Amino acid sequence: MEIKVDLISDTGTRPSQDMRRFMAEAEVGDEQLGEDPSVNRLCRMAAEMLGKDEAIYLPSGLMANQISFAVHTKQGDEIIMDQTAHPIHYESAALAVISGVSIKPLQGEGGIFTAQQVEQAIRDNDYHSPQTKVISIEQTTNLGGGRIWPLERIKKVAELAVENDLRMHMDGARILNAAVEADVNPAEYGQYFDSIWLDLSKGLGAPVGSVLAGSAEFIEQARFWKQRLGGAMRQAGIIAAGGIFALEHNVARLKEDHKHAKMLAETIADQKGLEINPDTVETNIVLFSVADGKTDLFADELLKKGIRVSRMEGKLRAVTHLDVSLEDIRYAVKHIEKTAKKVFA
Amino acid sequence: MEIKVDLISDTGTRPSQDMRRFMAEAEVGDEQLGEDPSVNRLCRMAAEMLGKDEAIYLPSGLMANQISFAVHTKQGDEIIMDQTAHPIHYESAALAVISGVSIKPLQGEGGIFTAQQVEQAIRDNDYHSPQTKVISIEQTTNLGGGRIWPLERIKKVAELAVENDLRMHMDGARILNAAVEADVNPAEYGQYFDSIWLDLSKGLGAPVGSVLAGSAEFIEQARFWKQRLGGAMRQAGIIAAGGIFALEHNVARLKEDHKHAKMLAETIADQKGLEINPDTVETNIVLFSVADGKTDLFADELLKKGIRVSRMEGKLRAVTHLDVSLEDIRYAVKHIEKTAKKVFA
Amino acid sequence: MEIKVDLISDTGTRPSQDMRRFMAEAEVGDEQLGEDPSVNRLCRMAAEMLGKDEAIYLPSGLMANQISFAVHTKQGDEIIMDQTAHPIHYESAALAVISGVSIKPLQGEGGIFTAQQVEQAIRDNDYHSPQTKVISIEQTTNLGGGRIWPLERIKKVAELAVENDLRMHMDGARILNAAVEADVNPAEYGQYFDSIWLDLSKGLGAPVGSVLAGSAEFIEQARFWKQRLGGAMRQAGIIAAGGIFALEHNVARLKEDHKHAKMLAETIADQKGLEINPDTVETNIVLFSVADGKTDLFADELLKKGIRVSRMEGKLRAVTHLDVSLEDIRYAVKHIEKTAKKVFA
Amino acid sequence: MEIKVDLISDTGTRPSQDMRRFMAEAEVGDEQLGEDPSVNRLCRMAAEMLGKDEAIYLPSGLMANQISFAVHTKQGDEIIMDQTAHPIHYESAALAVISGVSIKPLQGEGGIFTAQQVEQAIRDNDYHSPQTKVISIEQTTNLGGGRIWPLERIKKVAELAVENDLRMHMDGARILNAAVEADVNPAEYGQYFDSIWLDLSKGLGAPVGSVLAGSAEFIEQARFWKQRLGGAMRQAGIIAAGGIFALEHNVARLKEDHKHAKMLAETIADQKGLEINPDTVETNIVLFSVADGKTDLFADELLKKGIRVSRMEGKLRAVTHLDVSLEDIRYAVKHIEKTAKKVFA
Repeated sequence: MEIKVDLISDTGTRPSQDMRRFMAEAEVGDEQLGEDPSVNRLCRMAAEMLGKDEAIYLPSGLMANQISFAVHTKQGDEIIMDQTAHPIHYESAALAVISGVSIKPLQGEGGIFTAQQVEQAIRDNDYHSPQTKVISIEQTTNLGGGRIWPLERIKKVAELAVENDLRMHMDGARILNAAVEADVNPAEYGQYFDSIWLDLSKGLGAPVGSVLAGSAEFIEQARFWKQRLGGAMRQAGIIAAGGIFALEHNVARLKEDHKHAKMLAETIADQKGLEINPDTVETNIVLFSVADGKTDLFADELLKKGIRVSRMEGKLRAVTHLDVSLEDIRYAVKHIEKTAKKVFA
Repeated sequence: MEIKVDLISDTGTRPSQDMRRFMAEAEVGDEQLGEDPSVNRLCRMAAEMLGKDEAIYLPSGLMANQISFAVHTKQGDEIIMDQTAHPIHYESAALAVISGVSIKPLQGEGGIFTAQQVEQAIRDNDYHSPQTKVISIEQTTNLGGGRIWPLERIKKVAELAVENDLRMHMDGARILNAAVEADVNPAEYGQYFDSIWLDLSKGLGAPVGSVLAGSAEFIEQARFWKQRLGGAMRQAGIIAAGGIFALEHNVARLKEDHKHAKMLAETIADQKGLEINPDTVETNIVLFSVADGKTDLFADELLKKGIRVSRMEGKLRAVTHLDVSLEDIRYAVKHIEKTAKKVFA
Repeated sequence: MEIKVDLISDTGTRPSQDMRRFMAEAEVGDEQLGEDPSVNRLCRMAAEMLGKDEAIYLPSGLMANQISFAVHTKQGDEIIMDQTAHPIHYESAALAVISGVSIKPLQGEGGIFTAQQVEQAIRDNDYHSPQTKVISIEQTTNLGGGRIWPLERIKKVAELAVENDLRMHMDGARILNAAVEADVNPAEYGQYFDSIWLDLSKGLGAPVGSVLAGSAEFIEQARFWKQRLGGAMRQAGIIAAGGIFALEHNVARLKEDHKHAKMLAETIADQKGLEINPDTVETNIVLFSVADGKTDLFADELLKKGIRVSRMEGKLRAVTHLDVSLEDIRYAVKHIEKTAKKVFA
Repeated sequence: MEIKVDLISDTGTRPSQDMRRFMAEAEVGDEQLGEDPSVNRLCRMAAEMLGKDEAIYLPSGLMANQISFAVHTKQGDEIIMDQTAHPIHYESAALAVISGVSIKPLQGEGGIFTAQQVEQAIRDNDYHSPQTKVISIEQTTNLGGGRIWPLERIKKVAELAVENDLRMHMDGARILNAAVEADVNPAEYGQYFDSIWLDLSKGLGAPVGSVLAGSAEFIEQARFWKQRLGGAMRQAGIIAAGGIFALEHNVARLKEDHKHAKMLAETIADQKGLEINPDTVETNIVLFSVADGKTDLFADELLKKGIRVSRMEGKLRAVTHLDVSLEDIRYAVKHIEKTAKKVFA
């Protein structure tokens, strides 16, 4: 069956014809030597957007997380994050392998924890235990269902970080979804973090890469880790140009994706056998449960109609994005209804 | 104030005059070259006791855990253990530093988890996630309150391990407390584990060291890690002899420590403001709560009477051992009662 | 001064208009999910070319080296390579950081060592020492001056590897320069190696990436490491297409670069104050010495004429490539002569 | 054949009756909690002797090296040492495994390098290369033949270290042999180093351990690493007491070992087929070559007479120590002469 509506992830967005044309004309140089004008331009744009001194272009968001942690810690340190956080489940234990640090998982709600939970998790300065060094926040929360960290909550956590001499890191895989939806300037988030990155290859629709921002000193150290991990490329301006185009054209439209997600959520909430609270769908991620152990069956039935969703920790996840039109959503809504009726007849 | 009854840990036990004499007469050689007869004898004793091919002598129990994990895993693997387990809280993040692996913490009861919890925690063979490789069990559970892992539960977990090609590791810091109390031959535990160790310097009263047992192939690899971590010593027969003496004289008497712990637990349970369920005190660890945020105060008051306990994750912990006599326990009982009355008047 | 002839490195080659057009039209998908048709096509091409089961696309050559070493080794192993090898000087100690292995440097000639040197370097199976596990060969030798490892020499080293159960790795940063010049099918090299890669962004002129080839099992494990190090991208087909184009159009022409290098070498050899043996210039790298401590001065003078070379371990290095025409070489020849006369008047 | 004269290593020295008695009477406590009075006393003695703020007791010299390097570096750094240094050959690649740093080996003479060699080895501050952070010196040089680093040479290297913001580390496995022979107060060496340790279980004759000294801040960080690597013991006062006894009784007599070594060296130098320059035998290590590929044969023949030496990198090594008397040396001299005549008849 051909896939008609691909809701598996916003990582699947493809460059548009306009973006491709823009990329093909990009000025390039050797970015490993700092001589690629398109890479340099993208980094200046991202640094400014996130309210930081400088930025560095990387082939993936995972590398942005790992480099940040590597710069902020020494071996034996510990990083506080939600139990649903990306580095725990989808980064192949890179934190232990690369930085030699442990993770303290918190049991937040929808991926969002409280300052009080952080406070209890901070370790004593005792050589028996790992040493707390970083607090990591995921904006929006992926496994948490695309929830937005409110600025006020971030601020409280950041105050604790300052008191305890901890670094603040934002995994901004979908930070612009949050910014657009909450109507917050990304730099307002940025002010609370020592390292913060945005992903160009998710809802923004660029083909490859992330941009990691921080102080000049942080970025200087990040360069060593970029080289060490194999992230230093050559004429990367070609793909960086996709990022420039995305930041110039595809940010505001993320709101449409959120509306689409809401439509899906409301449909799902109405079906017998499916469960979701539509109020928790704040951005472009729709995480729902299927009753009676029929999760796999339901996903398979949708696939027969050309609708692809992903399985995630016992639930199904549908993600809206640039390549999913209102028409596609209507098609999905129709077939979610039909399929639910069929499966839970 | 002089310390009269030191309940801070069974790690504080001191070698007796007889043990000291035995140690002073020990035959020794260069153990790094495998030429120390006392070390070799101790290893044979422990291997036999735990039902394994061979054993290796180490300066600490922490090193026994870390070497086992290092041999069983490669970087990027994951180890399942209870959220109260020693490597999470008291090994300075060594697992991440030395082996480059991550931990999957389970929420067991009193440090004891179920086979079903393990089953849910085993990761898919997917390159996004860490790869599950080892299940680690702590006998008895330290932060869990000295609970004994029942043989039947171990067996079920071990069956799962075999099905999923996982290694089984026992952190046997207090395995002989369990064996003596549950009347189980330590080798019966041993049959379910790829690596298993016992600690000589806790309730057994030897000054230094642990012995780690496993297959001949496992021990051969353990030797590389012992060298690499700095655990290869020289005329270690002097201290290994303390272990021989302990295994020959101090095992059966652990039952007394358990009786003493029960006495403490029952006293504590009777006091207003203190909380413990005496049924959960199965061996020599007494973990109790103090009401009204008076944990520190209560510990300080006990110390004024020469009774030392430790603070552990918001509770107080009293541990009975070789150097705590029945008379000492009676003294402690009396002053716990008095102090509770005073503090919670 | 504008740069007229950039001999600093073949990493600086820029995509041609035809390559850019080809890239802009590339079919793409999510390569992290294995769904990018251009990436998949490039990998099949490279695997076949190198005589291996499968291949994997990576953002850099450094990552190809590091992933290979990580798959082949466990912590505490040792890798034999020439003292001039890339991982020793230009990979930010990644081998120690990522794989936890040490390096045994050999003193080869022009980066090429003998089977006998390898034999003497293999460690005993003794837990005091690192354990020899991999032999790594750089084709062509970069710091060695672009020398070609002869097939016969490789074969002898590979026989030793088999006898001693060692893995063979080829750092093929410039393997096609060697293949074209020595008239050897790359797969003939490939047969002797457990892992072998080629770089798309050097003389081949593609903007980004390398392709690493090996057995199906090796590539499966490489995928974990690609994810872990942050090399898993999304619509990477855009840049992989540059690699396809390069393999289809830019291989045979590497011979021209070698002729150009020879012209430079012969000119240099004729100048008073400059030193090189032109017979050692086998491919596109020209490594020469400048007398009387005038290395920096000479490079600066060339730069005034718009000719850029790099400093490398006390010497100067000029690299010919796709973006350096015969006319450019004639210009360089003329000004090298003039500059040498001026500097060593 | 019974071993009559064991010259295999000074690591094989056994505690005397007096030392055993002293150890058996040692006051002890839980050293992991800082409560062992004998450990504390030994540490104060060593710190004072080496001219440092504080010291820490460890189960081995290897751990002293590894902890020092771990404290001084972050991942990706590089350590300069002689190519014969212990961490390169006998520490199972621990530097890469534990600290994630690389080694820059220098080609010194007899294990002793020059300030100029160091200068050339210091890397640029460039993210392509490892970052030079530590200079490590072995006193005396083991594989170098027991040579003594002259104070003046150390001073010059230390000046370079200061200029380049590098840490200085002394692997003092046999520092007291150097101090006694060169008539230098160990604290005179100590002033030039950020970390410095002495071994108790070599020529000093204590059974187990080393003491590592440095600034208060250094030792505080060392404690984390001691715990992490499994070096934190319990009633270690028993063995620390052996160290106290050794420092009080066995230092001055090291000169005898040196005389004995000289006797052996002069005998060896006189034999046809054996080669050594007696002038290079400055302390207790006698490293000599055997001609005509008869190294193994010669060692085997000596063993038939009860004389045990070790094979080391193609040579034979004889080490004199506490348990080798003048009479033993005379016996060895006689049989070295006889054996040489027989083997090279």
